[in-house]
Amino acid sequence: MEKQRVSDAVIRRLPRYYRQLSQLEREGVLRISSGQLSRLMSLTASQIRHDLNCFGGFGQQGYGYSVKGLKSAIADILELGQQKHMIIIGAGNIGQALACYEGFPREGFYVHAIFDNNPRLIGKTVGRLQVSDIQELESYLAAEKVNIAVVATPGEFAQQTADRLTACGVRAIWNFAPIDVAAPNNVVVENVSLSDSLYALSYFMNQLDEQA
Amino acid sequence: MEKQRVSDAVIRRLPRYYRQLSQLEREGVLRISSGQLSRLMSLTASQIRHDLNCFGGFGQQGYGYSVKGLKSAIADILELGQQKHMIIIGAGNIGQALACYEGFPREGFYVHAIFDNNPRLIGKTVGRLQVSDIQELESYLAAEKVNIAVVATPGEFAQQTADRLTACGVRAIWNFAPIDVAAPNNVVVENVSLSDSLYALSYFMNQLDEQA
Repeated sequence: MEKQRVSDAVIRRLPRYYRQLSQLEREGVLRISSGQLSRLMSLTASQIRHDLNCFGGFGQQGYGYSVKGLKSAIADILELGQQKHMIIIGAGNIGQALACYEGFPREGFYVHAIFDNNPRLIGKTVGRLQVSDIQELESYLAAEKVNIAVVATPGEFAQQTADRLTACGVRAIWNFAPIDVAAPNNVVVENVSLSDSLYALSYFMNQLDEQA
Repeated sequence: MEKQRVSDAVIRRLPRYYRQLSQLEREGVLRISSGQLSRLMSLTASQIRHDLNCFGGFGQQGYGYSVKGLKSAIADILELGQQKHMIIIGAGNIGQALACYEGFPREGFYVHAIFDNNPRLIGKTVGRLQVSDIQELESYLAAEKVNIAVVATPGEFAQQTADRLTACGVRAIWNFAPIDVAAPNNVVVENVSLSDSLYALSYFMNQLDEQA
Protein backbone atom coordinates (compact mmCIF):
# COMPACT_ATOMS: atom_id res chain seq x y z
CA MET A 1 0.00 0.00 0.00
CA GLU A 2 1.34 3.42 -0.91
CA LYS A 3 2.06 5.60 2.11
CA GLN A 4 0.47 9.01 2.19
CA ARG A 5 0.42 11.79 4.76
CA VAL A 6 -2.48 11.18 7.11
CA SER A 7 -3.64 13.81 9.59
CA ASP A 8 -2.68 13.34 13.22
CA ALA A 9 -6.36 13.43 14.18
CA VAL A 10 -7.07 10.34 12.05
CA ILE A 11 -4.00 8.56 13.43
CA ARG A 12 -5.20 9.24 16.95
CA ARG A 13 -8.54 7.55 16.18
CA LEU A 14 -6.92 4.41 14.76
CA PRO A 15 -6.12 2.85 18.16
CA ARG A 16 -9.81 3.17 19.06
CA TYR A 17 -10.81 1.38 15.87
CA TYR A 18 -8.23 -1.25 16.67
CA ARG A 19 -9.59 -1.81 20.18
CA GLN A 20 -13.19 -1.93 18.91
CA LEU A 21 -12.33 -4.40 16.17
CA SER A 22 -10.35 -6.57 18.60
CA GLN A 23 -13.43 -6.71 20.80
CA LEU A 24 -15.68 -7.60 17.86
CA GLU A 25 -13.24 -10.33 16.86
CA ARG A 26 -13.33 -11.79 20.39
CA GLU A 27 -17.13 -11.78 20.15
CA GLY A 28 -16.92 -13.77 16.91
CA VAL A 29 -18.17 -11.01 14.58
CA LEU A 30 -16.86 -11.51 11.04
CA ARG A 31 -18.12 -8.49 9.10
CA ILE A 32 -19.33 -5.04 10.10
CA SER A 33 -20.81 -2.08 8.22
CA SER A 34 -19.66 1.50 8.75
CA GLY A 35 -23.15 2.18 10.16
CA GLN A 36 -22.82 -0.52 12.82
CA LEU A 37 -19.30 0.58 13.65
CA SER A 38 -20.47 4.19 13.94
CA ARG A 39 -23.12 3.27 16.51
CA LEU A 40 -20.62 1.29 18.58
CA MET A 41 -18.05 4.07 18.51
CA SER A 42 -20.26 7.18 18.61
CA LEU A 43 -18.77 8.46 15.36
CA THR A 44 -20.73 9.20 12.18
CA ALA A 45 -20.64 6.59 9.44
CA SER A 46 -19.22 9.17 7.02
CA GLN A 47 -16.46 9.99 9.53
CA ILE A 48 -15.57 6.31 9.67
CA ARG A 49 -15.56 5.96 5.88
CA HIS A 50 -13.41 9.09 5.62
CA ASP A 51 -10.92 7.84 8.23
CA LEU A 52 -10.50 4.43 6.66
CA ASN A 53 -10.33 5.85 3.12
CA CYS A 54 -7.23 7.77 4.19
CA PHE A 55 -5.45 4.46 4.03
CA GLY A 56 -6.93 3.36 0.75
CA GLY A 57 -10.17 1.96 2.18
CA PHE A 58 -10.79 -1.62 3.17
CA GLY A 59 -14.55 -1.92 2.73
CA GLN A 60 -16.70 -3.14 -0.13
CA GLN A 61 -19.87 -1.21 -0.99
CA GLY A 62 -22.90 -2.91 0.53
CA TYR A 63 -20.80 -5.63 2.06
CA GLY A 64 -19.07 -3.89 4.95
CA TYR A 65 -15.67 -4.47 6.40
CA SER A 66 -14.00 -7.73 7.31
CA VAL A 67 -13.37 -7.35 11.06
CA LYS A 68 -10.21 -9.42 10.94
CA GLY A 69 -8.93 -7.78 7.74
CA LEU A 70 -9.57 -4.25 8.93
CA LYS A 71 -8.03 -4.95 12.33
CA SER A 72 -4.92 -6.39 10.76
CA ALA A 73 -4.64 -3.49 8.28
CA ILE A 74 -4.80 -0.97 11.15
CA ALA A 75 -2.22 -2.99 13.10
CA ASP A 76 0.06 -2.79 10.04
CA ILE A 77 -0.36 0.97 9.80
CA LEU A 78 0.40 1.41 13.50
CA GLU A 79 3.18 -1.19 13.18
CA LEU A 80 1.78 -3.04 16.19
CA GLY A 81 3.31 -6.41 16.91
CA GLN A 82 6.81 -5.24 16.04
CA GLN A 83 8.86 -5.50 19.21
CA LYS A 84 9.50 -2.17 20.90
CA HIS A 85 12.08 -1.82 23.67
CA MET A 86 10.74 0.42 26.45
CA ILE A 87 12.26 1.71 29.67
CA ILE A 88 10.64 3.62 32.51
CA ILE A 89 12.25 6.44 34.50
CA GLY A 90 10.60 6.80 37.88
CA ALA A 91 9.47 3.82 39.97
CA GLY A 92 6.72 5.61 41.86
CA ASN A 93 3.07 4.60 41.68
CA ILE A 94 2.56 5.42 38.02
CA GLY A 95 5.91 4.00 36.91
CA GLN A 96 5.26 0.74 38.73
CA ALA A 97 1.72 0.49 37.35
CA LEU A 98 2.97 0.97 33.79
CA ALA A 99 5.76 -1.58 34.33
CA CYS A 100 3.14 -4.16 35.30
CA TYR A 101 0.49 -3.25 32.71
CA GLU A 102 -0.29 -6.43 30.82
CA GLY A 103 -1.79 -4.80 27.76
CA PHE A 104 1.54 -3.49 26.45
CA PRO A 105 3.52 -6.70 25.79
CA ARG A 106 0.46 -8.14 24.04
CA GLU A 107 1.02 -5.58 21.26
CA GLY A 108 4.82 -5.79 21.23
CA PHE A 109 5.69 -3.11 23.78
CA TYR A 110 8.13 -4.60 26.29
CA VAL A 111 9.40 -2.80 29.36
CA HIS A 112 13.01 -3.95 29.87
CA ALA A 113 14.17 -1.68 32.67
CA ILE A 114 12.90 0.75 35.29
CA PHE A 115 15.11 3.39 36.92
CA ASP A 116 14.85 5.56 40.01
CA ASN A 117 17.12 7.76 42.12
CA ASN A 118 15.55 6.74 45.44
CA PRO A 119 17.81 4.31 47.39
CA ARG A 120 14.70 2.80 49.01
CA LEU A 121 13.38 1.84 45.56
CA ILE A 122 16.62 0.80 43.83
CA GLY A 123 16.81 -3.00 43.82
CA LYS A 124 13.10 -3.41 44.59
CA THR A 125 11.20 -5.93 42.47
CA VAL A 126 8.48 -4.47 40.23
CA GLY A 127 6.71 -7.11 38.17
CA ARG A 128 9.50 -9.05 36.42
CA LEU A 129 12.01 -6.23 36.88
CA GLN A 130 14.33 -4.87 39.52
CA VAL A 131 14.54 -1.10 39.88
CA SER A 132 17.91 0.16 38.58
CA ASP A 133 19.89 3.15 39.81
CA ILE A 134 19.25 6.18 37.57
CA GLN A 135 23.03 6.69 37.54
CA GLU A 136 23.18 3.66 35.25
CA LEU A 137 20.88 5.27 32.68
CA GLU A 138 23.59 6.47 30.29
CA SER A 139 25.49 3.18 30.30
CA TYR A 140 22.22 1.30 29.71
CA LEU A 141 21.35 3.53 26.76
CA ALA A 142 24.85 3.08 25.33
CA ALA A 143 24.40 -0.69 25.40
CA GLU A 144 20.73 -1.06 24.39
CA LYS A 145 18.61 0.31 21.54
CA VAL A 146 15.67 1.82 23.41
CA ASN A 147 12.66 2.72 21.28
CA ILE A 148 10.45 4.43 23.83
CA ALA A 149 11.30 5.93 27.23
CA VAL A 150 8.54 6.56 29.74
CA VAL A 151 9.07 9.55 32.03
CA ALA A 152 7.19 8.95 35.28
CA THR A 153 9.20 11.20 37.57
CA PRO A 154 7.92 14.07 39.71
CA GLY A 155 7.37 17.23 37.67
CA GLU A 156 10.58 18.95 38.75
CA PHE A 157 12.76 16.15 37.32
CA ALA A 158 10.84 15.59 34.09
CA GLN A 159 12.64 18.00 31.76
CA GLN A 160 16.14 17.08 32.91
CA THR A 161 15.23 13.40 32.52
CA ALA A 162 13.98 14.05 28.99
CA ASP A 163 17.21 15.94 28.24
CA ARG A 164 19.35 13.02 29.44
CA LEU A 165 17.31 10.59 27.35
CA THR A 166 17.48 12.60 24.14
CA ALA A 167 21.20 13.31 24.66
CA CYS A 168 21.67 9.52 24.55
CA GLY A 169 19.68 9.14 21.34
CA VAL A 170 16.18 8.24 22.62
CA ARG A 171 13.70 9.30 19.93
CA ALA A 172 10.34 8.82 21.65
CA ILE A 173 9.25 9.98 25.10
CA TRP A 174 5.99 9.08 26.78
CA ASN A 175 5.70 11.62 29.57
CA PHE A 176 3.46 11.05 32.60
CA ALA A 177 4.98 13.78 34.76
CA PRO A 178 2.53 16.60 35.52
CA ILE A 179 4.64 19.01 33.42
CA ASP A 180 4.90 19.02 29.63
CA VAL A 181 8.44 18.34 28.48
CA ALA A 182 10.08 19.74 25.38
CA ALA A 183 12.50 17.93 23.08
CA PRO A 184 14.37 18.53 19.82
CA ASN A 185 12.41 18.25 16.54
CA ASN A 186 13.78 14.79 15.82
CA VAL A 187 12.21 13.41 19.00
CA VAL A 188 8.53 12.60 19.46
CA VAL A 189 7.00 13.50 22.81
CA GLU A 190 3.60 12.39 24.02
CA ASN A 191 2.64 14.35 27.13
CA VAL A 192 -0.03 12.46 29.06
CA SER A 193 -1.36 14.59 31.84
CA LEU A 194 -3.76 12.49 33.89
CA SER A 195 -5.09 15.51 35.72
CA ASP A 196 -5.95 17.31 32.44
CA SER A 197 -8.39 14.54 31.63
CA LEU A 198 -9.81 14.61 35.17
CA TYR A 199 -10.31 18.39 35.10
CA ALA A 200 -12.10 18.18 31.76
CA LEU A 201 -14.36 15.41 33.08
CA SER A 202 -15.13 17.46 36.15
CA TYR A 203 -15.99 20.51 34.02
CA PHE A 204 -18.32 18.55 31.75
CA MET A 205 -20.02 17.02 34.80
CA ASN A 206 -20.62 20.50 36.25
CA GLN A 207 -22.07 21.64 32.92
CA LEU A 208 -24.51 18.72 32.95
CA ASP A 209 -25.56 19.57 36.49
CA GLU A 210 -26.26 23.16 35.49
CA GLN A 211 -28.40 22.06 32.54
CA ALA A 212 -30.35 19.63 34.75
CA MET B 1 -18.87 36.45 34.53
CA GLU B 2 -21.57 35.43 32.12
CA LYS B 3 -21.39 31.77 31.14
CA GLN B 4 -21.36 30.97 27.49
CA ARG B 5 -21.06 27.74 25.56
CA VAL B 6 -17.38 27.08 24.99
CA SER B 7 -16.15 24.41 22.61
CA ASP B 8 -14.89 21.17 24.11
CA ALA B 9 -11.55 21.67 22.35
CA VAL B 10 -10.99 24.93 24.23
CA ILE B 11 -12.04 23.35 27.53
CA ARG B 12 -9.56 20.55 26.98
CA ARG B 13 -6.74 23.06 26.58
CA LEU B 14 -7.57 24.91 29.82
CA PRO B 15 -5.91 22.37 32.13
CA ARG B 16 -2.69 22.80 30.14
CA TYR B 17 -2.88 26.59 30.60
CA TYR B 18 -3.55 26.00 34.27
CA ARG B 19 -0.48 23.78 34.68
CA GLN B 20 1.72 26.17 32.73
CA LEU B 21 0.55 29.17 34.78
CA SER B 22 1.03 27.24 38.04
CA GLN B 23 4.61 26.56 37.01
CA LEU B 24 5.22 30.21 36.10
CA GLU B 25 3.78 31.26 39.45
CA ARG B 26 6.16 28.86 41.25
CA GLU B 27 9.02 30.45 39.29
CA GLY B 28 7.94 33.89 40.52
CA VAL B 29 6.74 35.23 37.13
CA LEU B 30 4.09 37.94 37.61
CA ARG B 31 2.98 38.85 34.07
CA ILE B 32 3.19 37.09 30.72
CA SER B 33 2.34 38.06 27.15
CA SER B 34 0.40 35.80 24.81
CA GLY B 35 3.59 35.60 22.72
CA GLN B 36 5.67 34.30 25.62
CA LEU B 37 2.93 31.87 26.62
CA SER B 38 2.68 30.65 23.04
CA ARG B 39 6.41 29.80 22.91
CA LEU B 40 6.19 27.93 26.21
CA MET B 41 3.14 25.96 25.13
CA SER B 42 3.81 25.45 21.41
CA LEU B 43 0.53 27.17 20.52
CA THR B 44 0.19 30.26 18.34
CA ALA B 45 -0.33 33.58 20.13
CA SER B 46 -3.59 34.09 18.24
CA GLN B 47 -4.77 30.64 19.37
CA ILE B 48 -4.09 31.62 22.95
CA ARG B 49 -5.88 34.97 22.61
CA HIS B 50 -8.83 33.18 21.00
CA ASP B 51 -9.00 30.55 23.76
CA LEU B 52 -8.90 33.05 26.59
CA ASN B 53 -11.33 35.42 24.86
CA CYS B 54 -13.92 32.63 24.99
CA PHE B 55 -14.21 33.41 28.66
CA GLY B 56 -14.30 37.16 28.29
CA GLY B 57 -10.54 37.68 28.05
CA PHE B 58 -8.25 38.49 30.95
CA GLY B 59 -5.40 40.35 29.22
CA GLN B 60 -4.74 44.02 28.63
CA GLN B 61 -3.38 45.13 25.27
CA GLY B 62 0.38 45.64 25.44
CA TYR B 63 0.50 44.63 29.07
CA GLY B 64 -0.03 40.90 28.99
CA TYR B 65 -1.75 38.66 31.46
CA SER B 66 -1.40 38.56 35.21
CA VAL B 67 -0.14 35.03 35.86
CA LYS B 68 -1.94 34.77 39.18
CA GLY B 69 -5.15 36.36 37.88
CA LEU B 70 -5.34 34.19 34.77
CA LYS B 71 -4.57 31.04 36.75
CA SER B 72 -7.27 31.80 39.24
CA ALA B 73 -9.79 32.65 36.50
CA ILE B 74 -9.13 29.31 34.81
CA ALA B 75 -9.42 27.50 38.15
CA ASP B 76 -12.84 29.17 38.60
CA ILE B 77 -13.99 28.05 35.16
CA LEU B 78 -12.87 24.48 35.81
CA GLU B 79 -14.26 24.76 39.35
CA LEU B 80 -10.99 23.46 40.74
CA GLY B 81 -10.58 23.62 44.50
CA GLN B 82 -14.19 22.61 45.12
CA GLN B 83 -14.09 19.29 46.92
CA LYS B 84 -14.93 16.32 44.73
CA HIS B 85 -15.68 12.89 46.21
CA MET B 86 -14.04 10.17 44.12
CA ILE B 87 -14.07 6.39 44.36
CA ILE B 88 -12.05 3.83 42.42
CA ILE B 89 -13.32 0.47 41.20
CA GLY B 90 -10.46 -1.95 40.67
CA ALA B 91 -7.44 -2.13 42.97
CA GLY B 92 -4.97 -3.43 40.39
CA ASN B 93 -1.84 -1.56 39.37
CA ILE B 94 -3.58 1.40 37.79
CA GLY B 95 -6.26 1.68 40.49
CA GLN B 96 -3.65 1.65 43.24
CA ALA B 97 -1.49 4.20 41.41
CA LEU B 98 -4.45 6.56 41.03
CA ALA B 99 -5.44 6.10 44.68
CA CYS B 100 -1.96 7.23 45.71
CA TYR B 101 -1.52 10.03 43.16
CA GLU B 102 -0.71 13.16 45.14
CA GLY B 103 -1.67 15.66 42.47
CA PHE B 104 -5.43 15.06 42.81
CA PRO B 105 -6.15 16.16 46.41
CA ARG B 106 -4.10 19.31 45.76
CA GLU B 107 -6.89 20.43 43.41
CA GLY B 108 -9.79 19.16 45.49
CA PHE B 109 -10.17 15.64 44.12
CA TYR B 110 -10.25 13.21 47.05
CA VAL B 111 -10.35 9.45 46.68
CA HIS B 112 -12.49 8.16 49.56
CA ALA B 113 -12.81 4.47 48.71
CA ILE B 114 -11.38 1.78 46.47
CA PHE B 115 -13.24 -1.43 45.64
CA ASP B 116 -12.26 -4.81 44.22
CA ASN B 117 -13.76 -8.28 43.86
CA ASN B 118 -10.49 -10.10 44.51
CA PRO B 119 -10.38 -11.61 48.06
CA ARG B 120 -6.58 -11.26 48.03
CA LEU B 121 -6.94 -7.49 47.59
CA ILE B 122 -9.98 -6.80 49.80
CA GLY B 123 -8.77 -5.36 53.12
CA LYS B 124 -5.33 -4.52 51.73
CA THR B 125 -4.00 -1.05 52.54
CA VAL B 126 -3.54 1.26 49.55
CA GLY B 127 -2.22 4.68 50.50
CA ARG B 128 -4.57 5.91 53.24
CA LEU B 129 -7.35 3.50 52.21
CA GLN B 130 -8.33 -0.10 52.69
CA VAL B 131 -9.68 -1.97 49.68
CA SER B 132 -13.43 -2.60 50.08
CA ASP B 133 -15.44 -5.51 48.75
CA ILE B 134 -17.16 -4.59 45.48
CA GLN B 135 -20.32 -6.13 46.94
CA GLU B 136 -20.51 -3.08 49.19
CA LEU B 137 -20.58 -0.69 46.21
CA GLU B 138 -24.34 -0.13 46.15
CA SER B 139 -24.65 0.48 49.89
CA TYR B 140 -21.69 2.89 49.74
CA LEU B 141 -23.31 4.83 46.89
CA ALA B 142 -26.62 4.94 48.78
CA ALA B 143 -24.88 6.54 51.77
CA GLU B 144 -22.38 8.86 50.04
CA LYS B 145 -22.66 11.48 47.32
CA VAL B 146 -19.94 10.38 44.89
CA ASN B 147 -18.99 12.95 42.24
CA ILE B 148 -16.59 10.90 40.13
CA ALA B 149 -16.08 7.14 39.89
CA VAL B 150 -12.88 5.78 38.38
CA VAL B 151 -13.22 2.48 36.53
CA ALA B 152 -9.88 0.65 36.66
CA THR B 153 -11.13 -2.89 36.17
CA PRO B 154 -10.07 -5.36 33.47
CA GLY B 155 -11.81 -4.67 30.17
CA GLU B 156 -14.40 -7.43 30.52
CA PHE B 157 -15.82 -5.93 33.73
CA ALA B 158 -15.74 -2.27 32.68
CA GLN B 159 -19.19 -1.91 31.13
CA GLN B 160 -21.03 -3.79 33.88
CA THR B 161 -19.20 -1.69 36.46
CA ALA B 162 -20.23 1.49 34.66
CA ASP B 163 -23.83 0.21 34.57
CA ARG B 164 -23.83 -0.43 38.33
CA LEU B 165 -22.41 3.02 38.98
CA THR B 166 -24.90 4.89 36.82
CA ALA B 167 -27.81 2.83 38.19
CA CYS B 168 -26.87 4.24 41.60
CA GLY B 169 -26.77 7.81 40.36
CA VAL B 170 -23.08 8.35 39.58
CA ARG B 171 -22.89 11.10 36.95
CA ALA B 172 -19.22 11.07 35.98
CA ILE B 173 -17.03 8.10 35.06
CA TRP B 174 -13.29 8.23 34.46
CA ASN B 175 -12.57 4.99 32.66
CA PHE B 176 -9.08 3.46 32.53
CA ALA B 177 -10.18 0.01 31.37
CA PRO B 178 -8.89 -0.85 27.89
CA ILE B 179 -12.46 -0.79 26.54
CA ASP B 180 -14.60 2.31 25.99
CA VAL B 181 -17.71 2.26 28.16
CA ALA B 182 -21.07 3.73 27.25
CA ALA B 183 -23.48 5.50 29.60
CA PRO B 184 -26.81 7.34 29.47
CA ASN B 185 -26.84 10.94 28.16
CA ASN B 186 -27.01 12.41 31.65
CA VAL B 187 -23.68 10.83 32.57
CA VAL B 188 -20.26 12.09 31.48
CA VAL B 189 -17.71 9.48 30.54
CA GLU B 190 -14.03 10.14 29.96
CA ASN B 191 -12.42 7.08 28.38
CA VAL B 192 -8.66 7.17 28.97
CA SER B 193 -6.98 4.47 26.97
CA LEU B 194 -3.31 4.45 27.89
CA SER B 195 -2.46 2.19 24.99
CA ASP B 196 -4.08 4.58 22.47
CA SER B 197 -1.59 7.23 23.43
CA LEU B 198 1.28 4.72 23.27
CA TYR B 199 0.26 3.47 19.81
CA ALA B 200 0.06 7.03 18.49
CA LEU B 201 3.50 7.84 19.93
CA SER B 202 4.91 4.70 18.35
CA TYR B 203 3.40 5.61 14.97
CA PHE B 204 4.78 9.16 15.04
CA MET B 205 8.21 7.78 16.01
CA ASN B 206 8.15 5.41 13.03
CA GLN B 207 7.20 8.29 10.73
CA LEU B 208 10.18 10.30 11.97
CA ASP B 209 12.48 7.34 11.36
CA GLU B 210 11.21 7.03 7.80
CA GLN B 211 11.82 10.72 7.13
CA ALA B 212 15.32 10.52 8.60
